[in-house]
Amino acid sequence: MYILKNKDKFFSEEDFLKFLDGFFEQREGLILGRGDDCAIIKTENEMLISSDLFLEGYHFDMKYFPPYAIGYKALAVNISDILAMGGIPVGFTMSIMINKKIATKIFFKEFFKGISLLCKKYNIYLAGGDISFSKSFGIDITIFGKKGERCLFRKKANPGDLIFITGDIGLSRVGLYAFKKGLQERFKVATMSHLMPKIFYYESRAITKNPFVTSLMDVSDGVLKDIKRLIPKEMGANLEIDGSMLHPEVISMAEILGEDPAVFAAKGGEDYVLMGTIASDGIKRLKDAIPTLKVIGEVIRNEEFMLNRKKIEGGFDHFEYSFKNTVE
Amino acid sequence: MYILKNKDKFFSEEDFLKFLDGFFEQREGLILGRGDDCAIIKTENEMLISSDLFLEGYHFDMKYFPPYAIGYKALAVNISDILAMGGIPVGFTMSIMINKKIATKIFFKEFFKGISLLCKKYNIYLAGGDISFSKSFGIDITIFGKKGERCLFRKKANPGDLIFITGDIGLSRVGLYAFKKGLQERFKVATMSHLMPKIFYYESRAITKNPFVTSLMDVSDGVLKDIKRLIPKEMGANLEIDGSMLHPEVISMAEILGEDPAVFAAKGGEDYVLMGTIASDGIKRLKDAIPTLKVIGEVIRNEEFMLNRKKIEGGFDHFEYSFKNTVE
Repeated sequence: MYILKNKDKFFSEEDFLKFLDGFFEQREGLILGRGDDCAIIKTENEMLISSDLFLEGYHFDMKYFPPYAIGYKALAVNISDILAMGGIPVGFTMSIMINKKIATKIFFKEFFKGISLLCKKYNIYLAGGDISFSKSFGIDITIFGKKGERCLFRKKANPGDLIFITGDIGLSRVGLYAFKKGLQERFKVATMSHLMPKIFYYESRAITKNPFVTSLMDVSDGVLKDIKRLIPKEMGANLEIDGSMLHPEVISMAEILGEDPAVFAAKGGEDYVLMGTIASDGIKRLKDAIPTLKVIGEVIRNEEFMLNRKKIEGGFDHFEYSFKNTVE
Repeated sequence: MYILKNKDKFFSEEDFLKFLDGFFEQREGLILGRGDDCAIIKTENEMLISSDLFLEGYHFDMKYFPPYAIGYKALAVNISDILAMGGIPVGFTMSIMINKKIATKIFFKEFFKGISLLCKKYNIYLAGGDISFSKSFGIDITIFGKKGERCLFRKKANPGDLIFITGDIGLSRVGLYAFKKGLQERFKVATMSHLMPKIFYYESRAITKNPFVTSLMDVSDGVLKDIKRLIPKEMGANLEIDGSMLHPEVISMAEILGEDPAVFAAKGGEDYVLMGTIASDGIKRLKDAIPTLKVIGEVIRNEEFMLNRKKIEGGFDHFEYSFKNTVE
């Protein structure tokens, strides 16, 4: 625990914003940055736009999340939405809700570092935003991007298309369980995945360039829930996930919990892998481009969803869960 | 007090979003709306963008604000940011933080109506957003717009320019005091201004077309604070505000409080009047175009801010106030 010194405090909004400026560079495309009523950004004739909330107690737990990871993940989940359309993230606005507990330069230095790491890596700029005190800490980011070679939508698959994912599923869920059970040491990859999920930037570029790909999304609520959002209304999916497709830490945790590893993995949200469908003729080329690619099933003609020959139910729904469990 | 029936409740995020759909129409320029990972919007080669938080207990008090006014004001303050650059609002994303207390169709019907009124009136579309449960109710809106005939920035005034405002100041502050003192009946205009501030849409269009205007912003924190954000660094302002420029309800409330009406009005935030500077040659034409226009002072050569020949201090700062008064 550090002892808070006077120089660690923010004294006004101006003070906070001046501090923030040190972490975010001017980049091409940002015509006018912070400091006026609006930012002005360079655009093409169409733009992708998406917003994601990232709230303490709902999307992250301050017990496990260092400020660096909060910043990183808040932006990462937004970047993922642009990649899930086959787009290229360009910039974002960020509204920060802070409270006294965290309103220190020590905290925000790490928080901004986590965000600016991704800005540098993917050449994304902060265009503006807002800041306010609030009952609890949270971030709302609106990200915008340009279209890739083409846009990839949901619900465009054809029967017989293969269903693919770009990386490991279930890891973030394992990480959360590991934190709760104090097993961080044994589940290092999973806990890191929960804090700082992988971003499938180059995988998205490769997918967009493959003309056989028919649809794409990112998995935020778990494969079991999101597959129903990906597949067109009159169709279904036959998923086959075996142990060889799962990370060893996922299998270990499923064993500890006495659960089926494939079901456990397919229910896990927040891995932000890209999940899509592709006509089978294109799969070899996609596998060559993305070494971590896994084919987990096939689109079927009837409206039925199966995992390893069993009918599947749902994934995790933040909203439903909170609705049922919030105590006022 | 109504008795909550089962049909008034939301059962899932899907349920909530389906309900929301009923209030927001498809409009030209929104190429792809809600339902995929991103929205796709039509843009020109440059775009204005701005975000504003609107949080319970910080920006609005549920004791005074009916849900209709919460929706209205959350969007209105964002529209004002685009107008303050001389731009034309086009669309927005909206992140809603809800809790059990307000998660009913009865509440959100009114809330969405307040927003969609403005969407219809100014031809603005909802592009997307996010929703999450939260410890307290709040909205974060990111609005985007196209440039007007030209952009109007802050800090571009010249010495000798006149300082103008497009409407009444201090009214919103009077409204807040009236609510707190139970004087709503006596301060009807002011309380309405606090709940549903006037939007200076057509005034912004007229200002942008006047080539003599040198700078523009909207007044959210009060003239006394915002004037320092408007005037270039090496200059100052000599403000002269007399009773004839103030709304009778502002004068009445200042009398009740024993304060100087001009100072009271100039400290009042949240009126969202446009405040700008103009070379004196252009003022007649601007007055003709905007009947409610008031000239409140002049830009001066030295870095000094005066109101009615007295040096001025500051306005209201949500951030500073919260920092000093939040109890953890």
